[in-house]
Amino acid sequence: MNQIVFIPDGTVTSPQGFSAGAVCADIKKKGSKKLDLGILCSKEICAVAGLFTTNKIKSPSVVLCQQRVQNGKAKAIVANSGCANASTGEQGFADAKEMTTIAAKTIGAEPKEVLIANTGVIGIKLPMDVIRKGLKQIKPTPKGGHDFEQSIMTTDTMLKEVAITVKSGKSSFTIGGVGKGSGMIHPNLATMLVFLTTDANVTPVFLKKALREASAISFNMISVDGDTSPSDTLLIFANGLAKNEPIAAKSPLAEVFQQALNQVCVYLAKAIARDGEGATKLIEVNVKGAVNLKEARSAARTIVSSNLLKSAVYGNDPNWGRVTAALGRSGAHVEESKLDVYMGAVPVFKQGEPVAFDKTKAVKVLKQKEVPITVQLNLGSAEATAWGCDLTEQYVKINAEYTT
Amino acid sequence: MNQIVFIPDGTVTSPQGFSAGAVCADIKKKGSKKLDLGILCSKEICAVAGLFTTNKIKSPSVVLCQQRVQNGKAKAIVANSGCANASTGEQGFADAKEMTTIAAKTIGAEPKEVLIANTGVIGIKLPMDVIRKGLKQIKPTPKGGHDFEQSIMTTDTMLKEVAITVKSGKSSFTIGGVGKGSGMIHPNLATMLVFLTTDANVTPVFLKKALREASAISFNMISVDGDTSPSDTLLIFANGLAKNEPIAAKSPLAEVFQQALNQVCVYLAKAIARDGEGATKLIEVNVKGAVNLKEARSAARTIVSSNLLKSAVYGNDPNWGRVTAALGRSGAHVEESKLDVYMGAVPVFKQGEPVAFDKTKAVKVLKQKEVPITVQLNLGSAEATAWGCDLTEQYVKINAEYTT
Repeated sequence: MNQIVFIPDGTVTSPQGFSAGAVCADIKKKGSKKLDLGILCSKEICAVAGLFTTNKIKSPSVVLCQQRVQNGKAKAIVANSGCANASTGEQGFADAKEMTTIAAKTIGAEPKEVLIANTGVIGIKLPMDVIRKGLKQIKPTPKGGHDFEQSIMTTDTMLKEVAITVKSGKSSFTIGGVGKGSGMIHPNLATMLVFLTTDANVTPVFLKKALREASAISFNMISVDGDTSPSDTLLIFANGLAKNEPIAAKSPLAEVFQQALNQVCVYLAKAIARDGEGATKLIEVNVKGAVNLKEARSAARTIVSSNLLKSAVYGNDPNWGRVTAALGRSGAHVEESKLDVYMGAVPVFKQGEPVAFDKTKAVKVLKQKEVPITVQLNLGSAEATAWGCDLTEQYVKINAEYTT
Repeated sequence: MNQIVFIPDGTVTSPQGFSAGAVCADIKKKGSKKLDLGILCSKEICAVAGLFTTNKIKSPSVVLCQQRVQNGKAKAIVANSGCANASTGEQGFADAKEMTTIAAKTIGAEPKEVLIANTGVIGIKLPMDVIRKGLKQIKPTPKGGHDFEQSIMTTDTMLKEVAITVKSGKSSFTIGGVGKGSGMIHPNLATMLVFLTTDANVTPVFLKKALREASAISFNMISVDGDTSPSDTLLIFANGLAKNEPIAAKSPLAEVFQQALNQVCVYLAKAIARDGEGATKLIEVNVKGAVNLKEARSAARTIVSSNLLKSAVYGNDPNWGRVTAALGRSGAHVEESKLDVYMGAVPVFKQGEPVAFDKTKAVKVLKQKEVPITVQLNLGSAEATAWGCDLTEQYVKINAEYTT
């Protein structure tokens, strides 16, 4: 029997052997008093896997981090908010290296065992004087997960933290995670940082495969492929302190580990989507009956990222024509005469004909904090879910005044 | 010597032999008193060419129009605003046919010589009672172009009309056009209707080729490929009354005709981009030095349709990181160390390094009604221009309250 249980107040330091800490180094804004520089580390060396932005302009920090993840082993990550260290030329690469070297000294590790991520304004160099000073003051503790999460937030308004414990036979292990997103997530860039930890013993090869699979149904379903910022980073550290039999592709624990990792990632992905800049609600688009998985995913993502639909959901306007219009340009096979569309449980379009639906009921669905929209293509058996948020005047305000 | 001259107050009825008229049929909103039903026609049969939405869900009217354009000949178009006749099932097809039949009677033509286009809310059936009545009242005249333009507008706030006269040797002819757009144009759907007329004598084959070429550098550069509504329609009618030698691929007049048509289309495309919903300014993105034309176009379109950049331009914020971030995910080859970015004439990024630019100067550029942004990739010789508008709170307001 497998048990998967969410830990109350769980975070990235919930798995055994992980510590974190953060300080306010005044990278964000002088006098903001906000945490903006943090370290997350394991007392033992970890198997590590990562997925990075596909943007052709990557920050020097991402380039450095990618190189080091290729070793398959790491012990820590140093991160900051307020400055993305992107488009900063050669100096940016030197600064990234120095940041990891100082962090390594602080926690007693080798520089090559320390990864890095930054988020914030593009094109501004890292303020290394305050970073040097700040890094020396960080004292990671097993309770530091919440502080670390705060130190990577930018326009995020909610903490995005989770941890779950898995019991399977005599084995038990924990997976934790923190994330930051905001921005409208899609169709545009918003730097997404997600750091996952586990005390499970996992082979590096399986860890990478599992991360890719979990990401495909979670973070990739809130962010249209390729629409990534210069800094997007997703990392998982596995330190093995749970002492389970190593989990590899066909191990007895492989399936439950994947299942638990999927849950952690979907939880964080939804939290990121819900907290899009200026957002007031979460939109969940379920596409069913697609010809294949690729088309189901593409259709769900295209619908959930339609600016027109996002605006209509904000205005509680059951304008389902914006659902079908987005579907039609998603590239997925569609036969209008077979198509059904639902707002919540309310059918609004059936077999190619508009339904004379009860508008009050549909508006009630749209007024919920979570708005489910279902599209049944009736062509095949593939399905996918994508998440997004509504588009509000507040989004425009935030982004019109970001750097100034 | 060729002369291409814009006609003051020119419109779609400026070329010889074209008439138009419109009425208020109360399709938009009862008591709005706005023109919403119109006919544009030629006294002689025309060579005709069209380009249509690539959306897999096409309105029944588009399906009918596409069929009839394949004949290569037509005499008129009947159009309305307020109801898109999209996702209206079989009834929608019957209604579209009836509309053209009544319009044909009004002007004395065959139903198959009459094309059709509709724009407005999706999923609502055409109010045929008021349309039948309205169509019988329309009296097309050579001065009716302005009225016709008004009858196809939805949330448009400005008329989009143009006409130019071409003189080449002993030949002279005129090309006119009207359009409607609005919506944010990209990255989402906004129904775009553009109707062009000319009294030039043009072979149907060349007319189609010329329309495709003009569209590629104009309407396709304000609307990301494939991101089209169920109703997008671009048509050109050529009635030959200018009596010039027929223009075909290698005729003496072919080049000047193409040049003039390009100018008409770029004029209308910019007018459509400038009048995006809630927009306060036009953004023009020039991409230079790309590896090939496809990449130049893709890069220019991706940058101009970034919600983050559009918001920054609205806020007069010279946040050029949003230009490079969008460029990086456009699919175009980029080498950051060779890249230059300009806001107007102000260099903000040179050869991979941020420039310490004068912020006041950059803000001044952003405060203009037309904001030019230039990206020099320094990799090849291909270049392209794309147009868009800023993203404002007003866009969200308009689209949150559209059908309700």
